[in-house]
Amino acid sequence: MASAIRWGILSTGKISHDFVTAVRSLAPEENQKVTAVAARQLEKAQEFAKCHNIEKAYGSYPELIADGDIDVVYVGSVNPTHYELVKQLLEAGRAVLCEKPLCINVRQTQELVALARERDTFLMEAVWTRCFPSVRRMMEELKAGTIGEVKHIAATFGIYTPENNRVRTKATGGGTALDLGVYCAQLTNLVMDNQSWSRLRTLGHLNNEGCDLSLSTSVTYPGRELATLVTHCEVAMECAAVITGTKGIMKLLPPFHAPTDLVLPSGTVSYPVPPSFPGAQYNFENSAGLQYEALHVAECLRKGLKESPLMSLYDTIRTAEMVEAMRKSAGVEYPEDDFHFDSSTPSFNQDCCM
Amino acid sequence: MASAIRWGILSTGKISHDFVTAVRSLAPEENQKVTAVAARQLEKAQEFAKCHNIEKAYGSYPELIADGDIDVVYVGSVNPTHYELVKQLLEAGRAVLCEKPLCINVRQTQELVALARERDTFLMEAVWTRCFPSVRRMMEELKAGTIGEVKHIAATFGIYTPENNRVRTKATGGGTALDLGVYCAQLTNLVMDNQSWSRLRTLGHLNNEGCDLSLSTSVTYPGRELATLVTHCEVAMECAAVITGTKGIMKLLPPFHAPTDLVLPSGTVSYPVPPSFPGAQYNFENSAGLQYEALHVAECLRKGLKESPLMSLYDTIRTAEMVEAMRKSAGVEYPEDDFHFDSSTPSFNQDCCM
Repeated sequence: MASAIRWGILSTGKISHDFVTAVRSLAPEENQKVTAVAARQLEKAQEFAKCHNIEKAYGSYPELIADGDIDVVYVGSVNPTHYELVKQLLEAGRAVLCEKPLCINVRQTQELVALARERDTFLMEAVWTRCFPSVRRMMEELKAGTIGEVKHIAATFGIYTPENNRVRTKATGGGTALDLGVYCAQLTNLVMDNQSWSRLRTLGHLNNEGCDLSLSTSVTYPGRELATLVTHCEVAMECAAVITGTKGIMKLLPPFHAPTDLVLPSGTVSYPVPPSFPGAQYNFENSAGLQYEALHVAECLRKGLKESPLMSLYDTIRTAEMVEAMRKSAGVEYPEDDFHFDSSTPSFNQDCCM
Repeated sequence: MASAIRWGILSTGKISHDFVTAVRSLAPEENQKVTAVAARQLEKAQEFAKCHNIEKAYGSYPELIADGDIDVVYVGSVNPTHYELVKQLLEAGRAVLCEKPLCINVRQTQELVALARERDTFLMEAVWTRCFPSVRRMMEELKAGTIGEVKHIAATFGIYTPENNRVRTKATGGGTALDLGVYCAQLTNLVMDNQSWSRLRTLGHLNNEGCDLSLSTSVTYPGRELATLVTHCEVAMECAAVITGTKGIMKLLPPFHAPTDLVLPSGTVSYPVPPSFPGAQYNFENSAGLQYEALHVAECLRKGLKESPLMSLYDTIRTAEMVEAMRKSAGVEYPEDDFHFDSSTPSFNQDCCM
């Protein structure tokens, strides 16, 4: 049997629930286990631990960070907390899988990446999309020239979130760019092999506190490639990704961020998400596919890798750059940012050039 | 039987061929006939007349314009010729159906619209899309609130055209905005009831002579509606239009500019194009649907209307405004334009506000 992978979980939110459910659904021979969970309130951690049969429950994050009997920590807390938590984890020498977006902006992202490299510690942004077999197949087909030269990438991600939801609130790092745009950006960067874009323009609607409720982004590349990315949190959209090439079209059917079906010129290939343990319940669509991510991280750790080959730290920086460019173009800022918009001037009507 | 409608045809290109084939496919009781055709070369007109069993063939446009025994003239010539030909037709008091785009820019469009009103003469831009039963059904469903409030409109139109094609050549009024963008713009304006947009931004790729080969456009509206329009002439795309509302999604399946299938939340409704005469052949997809347009124009003329209620002259101006805004934002100009870009400055990195 493979060496044991012991997971620690920071935060007991919906996505942490799904991730732990996925890990618990892995076959016994995968030898992965969640051994500890931490929340800011002990009761919440204990409740989560009881629900998921987890040995240790901590009432503060530092306790889990200090726990040396953990192989890798999953960070599932809200966006603005990632930077500080991951920093502390890396400084403690812990391997980390952190939910996307890794950070609020590029500066923070670069800092964490530098720290991970300095400490020679595993760090991966939890872009689980890239671990799906349909996406890996898509990349194989792209490399094989199945659709010729790519000319256009379209990625649309719209989900309805109610008023006062985390996604619509600045203090929780809301906005569609950070939450949904990261999926569109990582796909574009994946297909474009992280090439630098020529220009990027975004328009959208912001709510009163400056969170972007919707964005429509155009990106051009020097080789005449074009990308069109749309995010929305006021309506559920057809969340598909369409890649158009000179010889045909490939499409990741909805939900493209966790896709089971890939349409090729020759027809549709399906990779259903793996089964889960009896009675397993998930909060989000296709969350059983988080098993792919857990398997991938375990493989990286067992091989002694410090970065994921599917979502490298360079990939993370490039994705953060595109998301930040969207935000800049649309006039969306956070307290963590170096740049700030004067709302009385249309200063954010800018192109974001690489 | 309804009163006779006698068509004159200016230009013998592919779209004229399709339009005449559609008119010839109408049932005899519709009482529509093509009675004259004109080309710049008599042989071409004669060949076309022979092919389509047309009585009169003229070797110059002015001869047809002067022919008083015609009820309505169809203009199927290349884009830069529309303005002058329609002007002469209107001055001669002729009813006109002119291929889209009516003109190269807003100024010319406004001029022709004013002239048509001054002369009290029928003028319609040949936006045949709006005559399709699927589109009329879509509008009924939108008005009935089937998908609630509209939040996003996506329209994608990409067709492959070879190098040196009319669409890639400035002298023939090429560029995807004028040829394909007009379809995306008219759909957006139709759904948005011609509301003024707040901002519009476009990025795309221009060829050496400044024709836009691809464009990606974002449009915002004061009511938080958003539109995303993509045009491309280097690759065939999935040419669909997707309208997302607070209660669901409606979709015009490809080809959305001549659509037979409308996806509603309750399922797909289909309106196959009408049959054509035995052996009828068309150059373009679903051109048999040009029959809807011919029927609509005949109905307008028989009612004594001077504008189409489906594609009014106001609709034509609004569409021209959006197409021109796309062009301005992307830096595409024509000799006919009042504005000109200095290629050494990024002056065209502008928002186009209404």
